[in-house]
Amino acid sequence: MTNLKEKIRSIQDFPQKGVVFRDITTLLKDADALQEAFDALIAQTAHTQFDLVVGPESRGFIFGMPLAYHLHKGFVPIRKAGKLPAEVIRKEYALEYGTAVIEIHKDAVQKGQKVIIVDDLLATGGTARAMVELLEEMGAVVEGLFFLIELESLEGRKVLEGYSVHSLLQYD
Amino acid sequence: MTNLKEKIRSIQDFPQKGVVFRDITTLLKDADALQEAFDALIAQTAHTQFDLVVGPESRGFIFGMPLAYHLHKGFVPIRKAGKLPAEVIRKEYALEYGTAVIEIHKDAVQKGQKVIIVDDLLATGGTARAMVELLEEMGAVVEGLFFLIELESLEGRKVLEGYSVHSLLQYD
Repeated sequence: MTNLKEKIRSIQDFPQKGVVFRDITTLLKDADALQEAFDALIAQTAHTQFDLVVGPESRGFIFGMPLAYHLHKGFVPIRKAGKLPAEVIRKEYALEYGTAVIEIHKDAVQKGQKVIIVDDLLATGGTARAMVELLEEMGAVVEGLFFLIELESLEGRKVLEGYSVHSLLQYD
Repeated sequence: MTNLKEKIRSIQDFPQKGVVFRDITTLLKDADALQEAFDALIAQTAHTQFDLVVGPESRGFIFGMPLAYHLHKGFVPIRKAGKLPAEVIRKEYALEYGTAVIEIHKDAVQKGQKVIIVDDLLATGGTARAMVELLEEMGAVVEGLFFLIELESLEGRKVLEGYSVHSLLQYD
């Protein structure tokens, strides 16, 4: 088994000074590493029952769709404001500076449907928390959240307390 | 076999008046339809030899990644300006109104590597053409372009003449 962390490139001061950006493109372009990472991600979902995979634009699409296809589930995108063409439900949430808005189609999820959220990165958990709230307002049951990378020092798990949170690779 | 077109929702006047938007979210959330669409997309690539799947942000991620994973290839994202963290090569191209910029990591593709481009929609072909030029400037060989939907009246194939262009569902 490859050390997948060796396939992830660390870039200093991106997108802003003081931040180390974990660049997954170096993993994705390597067919063997991509295969291994996704196999491991899929394995992490093995004990979770769900109907739908929900992924946020745009890197959540990268990780959510192969999971949905491989496990024969539906996929629901959560997008930035103004991108989804039909009637949406939106949620505004706080960022470190300012706010962000996410949207989901109003008919994307049925009451009682079991969903998992898949994304590349768990950082502060702000976006993940907003997605959970949005989905629960629609009557969905969030059975778990699955991330490729977790930045542990940002304590995203704290804002997701009570939920089943999984990550494949952990960084400080 | 389902009529996949029945799973795609048509929305009038989005994103602007006079445009009929083909909304694939209704297909994606249906596990059986998603499975069938991707199986068909994968089948279309069966006679093409390639090393890498290239997909543009953000809906190209939706279709490119499951292909790469399923066929054990690498995946390379092409993104909008300012999103990729390492050194990039960029291309500006004309839209109906104004211009757009796409970027790819400089080390994403090696000279002589065979790539396919995957996206949800072939419309005027402007973005696809820009991606082809970008990849060829890097020394890649574009072995084919694969789209879920083709809007035939916009004649995107014309600007891709000489390339192997495939689509699963055609609309006027």
